[in-house]
Amino acid sequence: MESEGGPFKGILRDIEGRRKCYKQDWILGFKTGLRILAPTCYIFFASSLPVVAFGEQLSKHTGGSLSAVETLASTSICGIIHAIFGGQPLLILGVAEPTIMMYTYLYSFCISRPDLGRELYLAWVAWVCVWTAIFLILLSIFNACTIISRFTRIAGELFGMLIAVLFLQEAIKSEHHDKSGESDFLWLYTNGLLAVIFSLGLLITALKSRRAKSWKYGFGWLRSFIGDYGVPLMVLFWTALSYTVPSKVPENVPRRLFCPLPWETASLHHWTVIKDMGKVPVMYIFAGIIPAVMIAGLYFFDHSVASQMAQQKEFNLKNPSAYHYDIFLLGIMTLICGLLGLPPSNGVIPQAPMHTKSLAILNRQLTRKKMVKSAKEGMKMKASKSEIYGRMQTVFIEMETSSPQVCSVANDLKDLKEVVMRPDEGGDTKGKFDPDVHIEANLPVRVNEQRVSNLLQSVLVGLTLLAVPVIKMIPSSVLWGYFAYMAIDSLPGNQFWERLLLLFIPQSRLFKVLEGVHASFVELVPYKVIVMFTLFQLVYFLLCYGMTWVPVAGIFFPALFFLLISIREHLLPKLFDPQHLQVIDAADYEEIVAAPIQHSSFAYRKLGSSRHLSEGEEEDEFHDAEILDEMTTSRGEIRIRTISLKEPRLESEERRVTFEPH
Amino acid sequence: MESEGGPFKGILRDIEGRRKCYKQDWILGFKTGLRILAPTCYIFFASSLPVVAFGEQLSKHTGGSLSAVETLASTSICGIIHAIFGGQPLLILGVAEPTIMMYTYLYSFCISRPDLGRELYLAWVAWVCVWTAIFLILLSIFNACTIISRFTRIAGELFGMLIAVLFLQEAIKSEHHDKSGESDFLWLYTNGLLAVIFSLGLLITALKSRRAKSWKYGFGWLRSFIGDYGVPLMVLFWTALSYTVPSKVPENVPRRLFCPLPWETASLHHWTVIKDMGKVPVMYIFAGIIPAVMIAGLYFFDHSVASQMAQQKEFNLKNPSAYHYDIFLLGIMTLICGLLGLPPSNGVIPQAPMHTKSLAILNRQLTRKKMVKSAKEGMKMKASKSEIYGRMQTVFIEMETSSPQVCSVANDLKDLKEVVMRPDEGGDTKGKFDPDVHIEANLPVRVNEQRVSNLLQSVLVGLTLLAVPVIKMIPSSVLWGYFAYMAIDSLPGNQFWERLLLLFIPQSRLFKVLEGVHASFVELVPYKVIVMFTLFQLVYFLLCYGMTWVPVAGIFFPALFFLLISIREHLLPKLFDPQHLQVIDAADYEEIVAAPIQHSSFAYRKLGSSRHLSEGEEEDEFHDAEILDEMTTSRGEIRIRTISLKEPRLESEERRVTFEPH
Repeated sequence: MESEGGPFKGILRDIEGRRKCYKQDWILGFKTGLRILAPTCYIFFASSLPVVAFGEQLSKHTGGSLSAVETLASTSICGIIHAIFGGQPLLILGVAEPTIMMYTYLYSFCISRPDLGRELYLAWVAWVCVWTAIFLILLSIFNACTIISRFTRIAGELFGMLIAVLFLQEAIKSEHHDKSGESDFLWLYTNGLLAVIFSLGLLITALKSRRAKSWKYGFGWLRSFIGDYGVPLMVLFWTALSYTVPSKVPENVPRRLFCPLPWETASLHHWTVIKDMGKVPVMYIFAGIIPAVMIAGLYFFDHSVASQMAQQKEFNLKNPSAYHYDIFLLGIMTLICGLLGLPPSNGVIPQAPMHTKSLAILNRQLTRKKMVKSAKEGMKMKASKSEIYGRMQTVFIEMETSSPQVCSVANDLKDLKEVVMRPDEGGDTKGKFDPDVHIEANLPVRVNEQRVSNLLQSVLVGLTLLAVPVIKMIPSSVLWGYFAYMAIDSLPGNQFWERLLLLFIPQSRLFKVLEGVHASFVELVPYKVIVMFTLFQLVYFLLCYGMTWVPVAGIFFPALFFLLISIREHLLPKLFDPQHLQVIDAADYEEIVAAPIQHSSFAYRKLGSSRHLSEGEEEDEFHDAEILDEMTTSRGEIRIRTISLKEPRLESEERRVTFEPH
Repeated sequence: MESEGGPFKGILRDIEGRRKCYKQDWILGFKTGLRILAPTCYIFFASSLPVVAFGEQLSKHTGGSLSAVETLASTSICGIIHAIFGGQPLLILGVAEPTIMMYTYLYSFCISRPDLGRELYLAWVAWVCVWTAIFLILLSIFNACTIISRFTRIAGELFGMLIAVLFLQEAIKSEHHDKSGESDFLWLYTNGLLAVIFSLGLLITALKSRRAKSWKYGFGWLRSFIGDYGVPLMVLFWTALSYTVPSKVPENVPRRLFCPLPWETASLHHWTVIKDMGKVPVMYIFAGIIPAVMIAGLYFFDHSVASQMAQQKEFNLKNPSAYHYDIFLLGIMTLICGLLGLPPSNGVIPQAPMHTKSLAILNRQLTRKKMVKSAKEGMKMKASKSEIYGRMQTVFIEMETSSPQVCSVANDLKDLKEVVMRPDEGGDTKGKFDPDVHIEANLPVRVNEQRVSNLLQSVLVGLTLLAVPVIKMIPSSVLWGYFAYMAIDSLPGNQFWERLLLLFIPQSRLFKVLEGVHASFVELVPYKVIVMFTLFQLVYFLLCYGMTWVPVAGIFFPALFFLLISIREHLLPKLFDPQHLQVIDAADYEEIVAAPIQHSSFAYRKLGSSRHLSEGEEEDEFHDAEILDEMTTSRGEIRIRTISLKEPRLESEERRVTFEPH
């Protein structure tokens, strides 16, 4: 692990960098006013629902010693801390699947040990958290984050796939679980049937509504709303439906969420955990080091990658990153959670990049409206082209979240300037500058970087605790359907998955892939190489998956990922042509360079959509949302796709955007 | 109704025309050998399943006096008669929804009349059939079929939509019906839940498998198989699944098909129907004239349109049509069915065009293989280009089903000749003639016109009667799901439906439609006109639908369709610009002229698909199937679509096909 300068260097630099814009982070947030609520709600719903689901899973696997109450509490507490003291305020925190898995292993270990047992579970785990905290802090002190530049897709996507499979497994296993311990066969059977209907129903409707923004039918604002809040809406819908069962059906059919109310004694023992820590036998305290190493590794990996994806290059962020400091803070938060007997939170995907994206959309809407306004005024006053451009630039600079370097602004607005300055030929208006069309088409991406949205959404998560009586009304089968949804929804954009599918396409049909929009590697890497690489990844994946099935030793599964990262770095380049590796398994920042065409197709979409504006404001805003939405995968990555020569459409459109042929 | 020459003229001309090729129809059929079984099975499954479903619907609405046994019997008998004595042997017959509806009305009328009642139902209906037969024969004698050239889309599609809605209504209503009369609430409820699972399950899986041929994954032969037989397979699958319910569940859950075995007395009373006819009071005998008029009208319409779609221009049929004679024969068959107490059969959509299509595919496979062979031989022997072309032409002529007019052949093979004769430039092989690619790309459509496949499939339907004990195992809920499937599957390609959807697309999104492949009217007719026309059609549709709800008077609903045809002819041209009408509501043959581009995109697909052939025979054949499949809507119409200027892909591909740019 290479180090840059001595210990603490990284942390100090991060603190220094963020200190400069800390005040601005708050001012800007409040300046934005009520509109900040849009991204806030969006992220709140996107992050609270999984947390509830994980809570249910946790309570199932830990004999109810932890539940949705704890996961919500942890998410809220950590979120608030991070929003106020954190480095990168765009990063969203939450209790995630790796935590649940680890806590499950620890529980099964505990109950296998008579001198720990269920009673000392949380106390012992508190010790594990202490160790984890120590390791995380050490990692941050010794600038470990410098290696994140070497995280390529392979480990991340393998991990993502593993999570997806575990979700599906959860969704399926849970059915049986639901049935067990039921006395009356008949109601058991009915409950099973209802579970099938509810979980499949939620899965399908959620998947459909997820794609609402690209629907052909319905108004923009409606599609946009369904696209953003469809999944929670569907949970609501199927829960409501579950109450239409005839009254003759007994109380516990369909079975609903199990979790104690936050103000019941079951939830109030957390203050005692710290007291119990003393009761843990010394040997177990030290035994806690082993899982701690794994958890620390996982958190380090997860937290960094999530933060990285919230700060992807395309977002044009102005404020500096703070990887080292954020890991340090994560250590502190892990410690706090541990002592309170709560499962710790860490940076989550896709919520973190979703957050940045929603803020980019918000900023886009504000900026464009003002620029169009000023441009039109200018044109009314018959101002010269350079004057008009000047006005717009001024507006743009005003909107800059941080002190703007004029050079960069000039560069970002290059395209726009070109369009404005273009000499107009004769009567032909086609090339002439039209604010409504060209400003949107040439506006660079800017993100509204502030801390308010993150703080508010964490507070909302906290308030959800008061809503637990409502949450308890959700049928558990709906949640299992939600797990299946999370699994399937996470696959598109995962190149490992896409390459697996590629194996099922007979050679004679590959042209179908090339005809559509497709990942660059399909054209740049020989089919055989793709197959070999994918099979290697698949075998490794099965290895990891098998590992998770081993009762207690399963706790070592993260080790396989750390191993994979070094395999990728040292072994694979010997087996594959580094050129090919670079394309198939690019680190995010590498891949972004790969495909300039993305921009043209991006501009094309904007032009294409704005060309037909006619429903006024909310339609404009909707298009902003759709555009940025189509840019990113469901994991929140900026989607990099190349258009093959077989599809000249976008190229021709590109020409239309830049030269406006007459 | 204009007449051409005196009575009988039409029938005689038809007989004369078909007599010439009658012998050939049989010879060719047997010459084709076992391969004829492919289209035979395809059509058998496509037509037997609905017949069973209609049987179930019929027995539900007629208190079990008729059931799947009768519908199967009628379909088989009429099919055999038509295959042997019929005019156009490509036309497929079957008991269809209009018959079911009429028989339902007649039944509700009968039981409302004490002096008829359930006992004399079939006897009275026999009288109705007698009248219907008389009217049909009169229609054929006076050459009524000359008006079919004036059947435009509007009435047909309205009718199609009505049927679709009635299917859905059937699918939904049946659920409740299933539950009624159940004593134990619990099992009633379980049965309901199972019904939901089975019917939705079938609906979704059937719809998916229907599109198997365009799947990206899996081998060609597999996709092709699923695409052709997916629906029956799914019925099989869900039926099998319905036997996995735990043994503790009582016998009648889920409820299964109700129909008596053919050899039970319940099915053997049909020979007595003719005796009962004497018992029908005279006034009712004459009252039968009223429904007879309606039924005759429906049958005339349905039968002709089905026949028309089986003989669409693109199929390049060589043998003459026989509309008048077929209506005459339909009269005879209606009479026979009536006297046997069976519901009569008539020409069915989409089975009829499906039949022609499958035979075209068959012929294509045979021809291409031989031509490629001969061309390759020629090239081995370094034969001159014209020699090679000569060989291929000879093969092609050999394959001609009827005595070929050389001129037409020369014309049909024009494209191919051009490719073969093209002078080869330098070393560039791109333009060079390649048998595997260019023969497929330039082969005209030919149909294997014969009577064997139709005869065999009718015999198979007859044999299904022996399988009734197996058919009875199908859960009724699966059939209701099948009704929903038939409904939804019939909508795409129905322009009325597509225009209705258009109303839900906000102006700002219309470009999405134009970007894709779309019907010509979208570009050629002003949006406002489309909206007006569609709203008129919608109102008229609701009128017809409302009519079907009126208990006994509902029998007059066909009158609305006959009215619509004359409204279209006399009133609409006054309200709309005839130019626009011509585009929106073209009679099939009119529309075919509209879009030459279809051919290029067609050729494009062929080239596109054959460019990657590598899995040998079955893959080739599969592509043939896929190509002709993509050409037709699910109603079996040849799909006419124009490609907007926003989508230059196909045009460029077209250039590639014809000029091969270097």
